[in-house]
Amino acid sequence: MAATLTAAARRSSASLTSLLLKRHASTLKVGVIGAGRIGRVHLETLAGVPGVQPVILSDVVEPVLKEVTAQYGVPNYTLDGDEVINHPDVQAVWICSPSQFHADQIKKCAKAGKHVFCEKPIATDLNGTIEAIKVADEAGIKLMTAFQRRFDPSFARLHKAIAEGSVGEPISAILQSRDPSPPPFSYVKGGGGLFKDMAIHDLDIARWLMGARGKNDVVQVYATGHCFIDPEIKQLEKSNPSEAIDTAFIQLTFENGGNVTINVCRRATYGYDQRVEFFGKEGTLMHDNLYPNNVHLWNGQSTGRIDLPHNFFMSRYAEAYKNETIAFCQTLQEGKAPSPSGHDGKMALVLAMACDKSFKEKRPVK
Amino acid sequence: MAATLTAAARRSSASLTSLLLKRHASTLKVGVIGAGRIGRVHLETLAGVPGVQPVILSDVVEPVLKEVTAQYGVPNYTLDGDEVINHPDVQAVWICSPSQFHADQIKKCAKAGKHVFCEKPIATDLNGTIEAIKVADEAGIKLMTAFQRRFDPSFARLHKAIAEGSVGEPISAILQSRDPSPPPFSYVKGGGGLFKDMAIHDLDIARWLMGARGKNDVVQVYATGHCFIDPEIKQLEKSNPSEAIDTAFIQLTFENGGNVTINVCRRATYGYDQRVEFFGKEGTLMHDNLYPNNVHLWNGQSTGRIDLPHNFFMSRYAEAYKNETIAFCQTLQEGKAPSPSGHDGKMALVLAMACDKSFKEKRPVK
Amino acid sequence: MAATLTAAARRSSASLTSLLLKRHASTLKVGVIGAGRIGRVHLETLAGVPGVQPVILSDVVEPVLKEVTAQYGVPNYTLDGDEVINHPDVQAVWICSPSQFHADQIKKCAKAGKHVFCEKPIATDLNGTIEAIKVADEAGIKLMTAFQRRFDPSFARLHKAIAEGSVGEPISAILQSRDPSPPPFSYVKGGGGLFKDMAIHDLDIARWLMGARGKNDVVQVYATGHCFIDPEIKQLEKSNPSEAIDTAFIQLTFENGGNVTINVCRRATYGYDQRVEFFGKEGTLMHDNLYPNNVHLWNGQSTGRIDLPHNFFMSRYAEAYKNETIAFCQTLQEGKAPSPSGHDGKMALVLAMACDKSFKEKRPVK
Amino acid sequence: MAATLTAAARRSSASLTSLLLKRHASTLKVGVIGAGRIGRVHLETLAGVPGVQPVILSDVVEPVLKEVTAQYGVPNYTLDGDEVINHPDVQAVWICSPSQFHADQIKKCAKAGKHVFCEKPIATDLNGTIEAIKVADEAGIKLMTAFQRRFDPSFARLHKAIAEGSVGEPISAILQSRDPSPPPFSYVKGGGGLFKDMAIHDLDIARWLMGARGKNDVVQVYATGHCFIDPEIKQLEKSNPSEAIDTAFIQLTFENGGNVTINVCRRATYGYDQRVEFFGKEGTLMHDNLYPNNVHLWNGQSTGRIDLPHNFFMSRYAEAYKNETIAFCQTLQEGKAPSPSGHDGKMALVLAMACDKSFKEKRPVK
Repeated sequence: MAATLTAAARRSSASLTSLLLKRHASTLKVGVIGAGRIGRVHLETLAGVPGVQPVILSDVVEPVLKEVTAQYGVPNYTLDGDEVINHPDVQAVWICSPSQFHADQIKKCAKAGKHVFCEKPIATDLNGTIEAIKVADEAGIKLMTAFQRRFDPSFARLHKAIAEGSVGEPISAILQSRDPSPPPFSYVKGGGGLFKDMAIHDLDIARWLMGARGKNDVVQVYATGHCFIDPEIKQLEKSNPSEAIDTAFIQLTFENGGNVTINVCRRATYGYDQRVEFFGKEGTLMHDNLYPNNVHLWNGQSTGRIDLPHNFFMSRYAEAYKNETIAFCQTLQEGKAPSPSGHDGKMALVLAMACDKSFKEKRPVK
Repeated sequence: MAATLTAAARRSSASLTSLLLKRHASTLKVGVIGAGRIGRVHLETLAGVPGVQPVILSDVVEPVLKEVTAQYGVPNYTLDGDEVINHPDVQAVWICSPSQFHADQIKKCAKAGKHVFCEKPIATDLNGTIEAIKVADEAGIKLMTAFQRRFDPSFARLHKAIAEGSVGEPISAILQSRDPSPPPFSYVKGGGGLFKDMAIHDLDIARWLMGARGKNDVVQVYATGHCFIDPEIKQLEKSNPSEAIDTAFIQLTFENGGNVTINVCRRATYGYDQRVEFFGKEGTLMHDNLYPNNVHLWNGQSTGRIDLPHNFFMSRYAEAYKNETIAFCQTLQEGKAPSPSGHDGKMALVLAMACDKSFKEKRPVK
Repeated sequence: MAATLTAAARRSSASLTSLLLKRHASTLKVGVIGAGRIGRVHLETLAGVPGVQPVILSDVVEPVLKEVTAQYGVPNYTLDGDEVINHPDVQAVWICSPSQFHADQIKKCAKAGKHVFCEKPIATDLNGTIEAIKVADEAGIKLMTAFQRRFDPSFARLHKAIAEGSVGEPISAILQSRDPSPPPFSYVKGGGGLFKDMAIHDLDIARWLMGARGKNDVVQVYATGHCFIDPEIKQLEKSNPSEAIDTAFIQLTFENGGNVTINVCRRATYGYDQRVEFFGKEGTLMHDNLYPNNVHLWNGQSTGRIDLPHNFFMSRYAEAYKNETIAFCQTLQEGKAPSPSGHDGKMALVLAMACDKSFKEKRPVK
Repeated sequence: MAATLTAAARRSSASLTSLLLKRHASTLKVGVIGAGRIGRVHLETLAGVPGVQPVILSDVVEPVLKEVTAQYGVPNYTLDGDEVINHPDVQAVWICSPSQFHADQIKKCAKAGKHVFCEKPIATDLNGTIEAIKVADEAGIKLMTAFQRRFDPSFARLHKAIAEGSVGEPISAILQSRDPSPPPFSYVKGGGGLFKDMAIHDLDIARWLMGARGKNDVVQVYATGHCFIDPEIKQLEKSNPSEAIDTAFIQLTFENGGNVTINVCRRATYGYDQRVEFFGKEGTLMHDNLYPNNVHLWNGQSTGRIDLPHNFFMSRYAEAYKNETIAFCQTLQEGKAPSPSGHDGKMALVLAMACDKSFKEKRPVK
C-alpha cells in the first residue's frame, strides 16, 4: 500500500510536526504489550497510520484487553506479553507494560529479532539498563526510548532553531517543569524519588538542547531540594531522601562551560507547567506553555486567557505521543538509527542518579 | 462496535474540542462524493472515527479515485456520484463535488432518504438554495452546511463564552479575515465576487456570535470595497463590480442595535489572518491567529514568534475540519438537528447578496 | 540659559518620545488660563521644562489659584484671563478655560500677538471655529489644537512607522476607543453628543494615520449608534439623538479607497480602552492598551496581567500631555508650524458633525 | 511650601509608582556630590520635587560643574565635595562621586550630621563598608543604599504582590540579568569581577523578594561562570578569576529551603535583559522586559514588537531613579528608616564575595 503513508504525513501536517513519512513498499506489522493508558495512546496512533498494522495486543486484565482489541480492530490478543514478542508477523514491539518488566522484554525482543519502542525507563536500575542496551545492540535490533517531549512541535522547533544556529553557541537554559498537583503518597513511596521519576524527562531535554549544535554533554551536576507542597512525604526522608522532597533545583554544567537550570515541582496551581528558555551567544529562544485554545477574556477582574494551560501531560503532549510513534515507524521503514536511543535513556538515568547523589551529599558531582 | 466512538472522543480531546462522542449500537455507513482536497480531508476523518465506516467514494478522475480509495481502504468506488447516493448501505453522503452540482445532489439524496453533509455553497444562487433546502426538509433528511470555523476550538470557545454570558449582552464585534495571497485571476473572474466567495464565512460567524445569547439577527448591511492588491481584476468592474475588488469593509447592524464590522482582504503578508474581537456590556473576548508552534525568538533584529501564523485554511482549520465531520456523525447518531443548518447556509448567502447590493448601490441595505 | 533644554530632552527620553529639544538663546515666557485639572498638568510641564518660564496664571476660583501659583512658583496670578493674555512678558498662552471661552480668548491672543496652545475645542460650533482660526491666521500667531494622543509614545511610533512605509499603502484601520465608565447624566445632556464630545479624538487620529504617507483625507462618513449602557440618556433622543446613545460605530471612507472603523463606547469594564490596528498593503501595525506595570500573575484562576489597564486618560496619556506642551514650546522656539494645527481641530469637528448627520439621517454622508 | 509635594505625587502617578508624598511644613535642603551622569539624574529629580531644594553641587570638572549648576538653577557650586557636606543649609547629601570616595564621604557626613543617599557601593571592600555603616549608625544619620531596581514600578509591584501573599510561600525565583554589550577591557580589569560589579544588584533583589513575606535570608551560595563573549578578558584569570568571566550562574539557597537562580551575562543581543520569574506555593509572578512603546508590527518576516527592549539601564530604570530619590526625600520628611538600608548594601556585597569564593573554590559556600 505504497501510497498510504502520505495520509499520515497529511495528518501530521495538521498537527504541524515536521515529520514527513515517505511511501514504502510494504506494511509494517507491530505488536503492543500493555493496554493501559499509554498503550492505548500508542495503539490509536498505530491503528491510524497508513502503512502500519497492529497485529496483536496483550494485557493482563482480560476485559480491558478485549474491549481495546475490538475498539481498534486488532486481529489478535493475548494475556501473555511473550506471545506478542514471538508472534511471527510482528516486526516491532511497543513495550507499554509496567516498568519492572521492560528490561526483560527488551532482551526477549532482542533474542526474537524484533525492534523495540520502549516506554521509559529501559530498566529500573543502571545495571539493568546497561545490560538491556547491550543485548539489544548485540542483536542488532533498533531500540528507541520514549522521551515524547522531543517530538512535541514546539520542543522540536526549539531544537531545530538551536541546531540551525539561530541563537549561536549554547550558553544556558532554564527548564521549568511542574506537575499540576502531587501524586498520591503511595506513588511517591518507593517511586525512586523526584530526580528519577520526574526530572528524568528534563535531564534528557537539557542534554538534547545543549548538544543540538554538536557534542556538548554534562560534566557536573549540582542538585538541592525541599519539601514545600506535601508534608506527608517528609517521613520518607530516612528510607530515600529523594522521595521526601517535592521541589528540586538542579544545575547542570556542560563541556562548553554552559549551564542548565532545572526547576521541578510536584505542583503548579495553574496547570502543567512546561517551559524552556534557551540563551545563546546571539539571542534567546522561548517556549511557553500551551493552552487548549487562543481565546482571551478582558473584564473587570482581569485581562488574560479565558482558560488555564493544559492540565496534564496526556493533553499537553497529545501531538508528541503521536509523533514519536510515527517517528519510530519511519525509523524502521527507512533503516535509520532511532532517536532518542537506548543510550539517551541510559544517560538520563545516569544524570538522575547523579542528582540523587549530589542532593544527598550536598555537593557538586562530576 | 459500541465502544469505539470513545476513541474519537479521545482523539478530539487532543484537539481540545468539546465534542464528546457517545457509544452507539451500530456503525454509521457513509459515502463521499469527490476525492479532491476537501473530500480527502473529510474521508480521512471518516476513516479514523470508530463507529463510522466510509463504504463508497466517487470522483471523475479515475487515477486519483483509485489511489485515494486504496489509501483509506474504502471498499467501493465509482465514477458516478449518483451511485454513492444510491448505494444501499449508505446512510449519509458527504458532498464534496464542485459547487454547481451541490443542489442537484442534495435533492437526489433527499429523494433517496440519505442525510447530507454539504460543502458550501448549497447552491450557486438563492433560488437554488431555497429549493434544495425545501426538498431536504420535505424529505425529512438532515442537511448540514459545512461552515467549519464554528468547529475550530477557539471559535467554539468564543461562542460558548458569549452564550454563557461571560461578557454580557453583545454590543459589537470586529472580524478580520484575510487570505495570505490573492487567488489567480481565473478564480476571481466569474467567482461571484468578494462577498459571495470570501466574506460568506465571516457573515455566518457574525450571525452565530451575535446570536449566541438568543435571537439577534442582521437587520441592515452596509458594504464598501476597493481594489488595493491586484490591479488586474479591475477589468471585471463592468461585468461584476464585486469581482473587481480585493478588499471590503462590511458593517452589519443587528436587531439589538449591535454592530459587526468585517474586514476582508485577499492578502495579508504575514499569513492567514483570522481574528475576532467581541465586545459585550461586561467585557471583551479576543481570538488571535494560530501559529504552528509556540516558540519565540529574541535577537538583535526583533523579539517575537519564530514562525509566522498558519499560512492558509487547510492547516489553520485542520482541527475544525475533523470536528465538523465528527459533529455531523454525532448529530446523526443522536438524532439531533444539524448545526449549521441549511437555513444558516441560506442566510449567509442572503447577507452576501445584500453586501453586493449595498456595495453596488452605495447605500445601507435592510 | 542655552543649555537647559537638554534637560527636557533627557526627561522625555525617559518616556522614549522622539521629541528632541534644541538649545536656544532665550527663555520662552508663557501664561496659563485655567488652574483646573488640565491647566495644572500643563503648568507642571511648563514649570519643569528648562528654557521655559510660566510668568502668570489665572483662574476664577481664588483659593485654588493661590495654592497652585505657590506650588509651582509662578510669579504672578490674576482672576482675569485677559490679564494673562495682555501681560507684557507673555509670549504664548495655554488656554485651559471652559470651552465656551476658547474662541474669544484665541481672538484676544491674536489681537495681542500671543501664540496659542488651545485645549479642544477651538470653539463650540463650526462658525466660531472657522472664525477663530481665520483671526489667528490673519494675525500671524501660531495656534495649536491640543489633540494629545498624537504625542503619546505609542501613537507617535505608529504614525512614524506608517509614514516610513513599514506597512506600505494604508488600507484600513480599526480604532477602539472606550471610556471606563459613562459620565454623569448632567455631562451628557447638552454636551453635544457622542460624536462631538468623545469620537472627536478618534476622528483626528484616523485622519492623521491614514494621511501619514501623503494626502488622503476622508471623503465619506457613515455612523450608527445605540444606547446600551445607560438607559437614562434615552430621554435625550428628542432634543439631540447623538446625546441619547453611548455606543457608536463609525465608518470613514478615504480618498484612496481606504476605510477606518471607529468603535466608541462610554464603558469598558476593564479600564480605558484605546487601541489601534492599522492594516497596509505590506503588513499590520498594532497598538495595544497600556498597563501601569508589566507584572503577570499565574494562579489557579487565571494567567494574565496582575493589574487592569490604565483606568483613564490622565494616567494613560500622562506622557502625551507632557510631550504636547514640550512640542509646542519647541515649535515656538524653532519657528515651525504647529501640529495639530487649528485646521486639524476644525476638520475633526467637521467630521464629528458629519457623523451626527449620518446618524440622524441613517445614510452615508459625503 | 506645604502644598507642593502633591505635585510630585501627581508626577509620580504618571509613572504609576505607588509612592505618595505627603505635605510637609518645610523645605528639605540638599547637596549633591558629583555632576556626572548619575549625579545629573538625581539632581534633575531633586530640582523638580516640590518641597525639596538642591542648594549646592560639586564636581572636579569645572566646566561641567558650571553648566549643570546653571541648568538646574542650583544657587551654589564648588570643586570640593567637603563643602557640600559642610554647607550649613544642607540637610542631606547625595553621594554620586567615584566609588573610592564613598566611604570617606559617608563618614564625613556622619560627623556633620547630614543624612546620606549613597550610590553603590558604600565602600570598595567589606571592612570599609562595615565601618562606614557603623559610623553612620553611631551618628544617627540615615543612610540609604541606591539599589534603584527596588523602585521600578514593575519590581515594586512584584514585591508588593509577594508581600501580600498573592502567590503564597516563596519557593523559587529566576533572575535573568544581562547587559546589552560587554564593557571595555579597561572597565573589567580591576573592576572586581562579574559578581561584585554586575550581580550585586540581582543579589539584592533576590534577598528582597524571597524575604518579602518575612525573614528569609540566604544560607548558601553556589556560583559557576565562564567566558563566552569577550575572549580578551581571559588573560585576567590569574589576577582575578571573577574578572575573567562574562557569564555566571548563581544558585542561592534560602532559610526556608527556597532557591534563587541568577543568570548574568555581559551581553544580550536584543537589549537590556532584566526579567524575574517568581514561583510560590500558590502561583507564579513574572516581570518581563520593558519596551519604549507598545507597538507591534506584523509583516512577511515576523510578528512581534516593532522595537527592541530598552537598550540600557538609564532608560530602562528612568522611573526607578526618580522614585528612589523621591523615596529618600520622603523617608527624611517622615522620619522613617531608609530602605534599602546600609545593611542591605553590605549584605549584597557579602553575597557577591561569597559568589567569588564559591566560583574560585568550585563548591557551595555557606
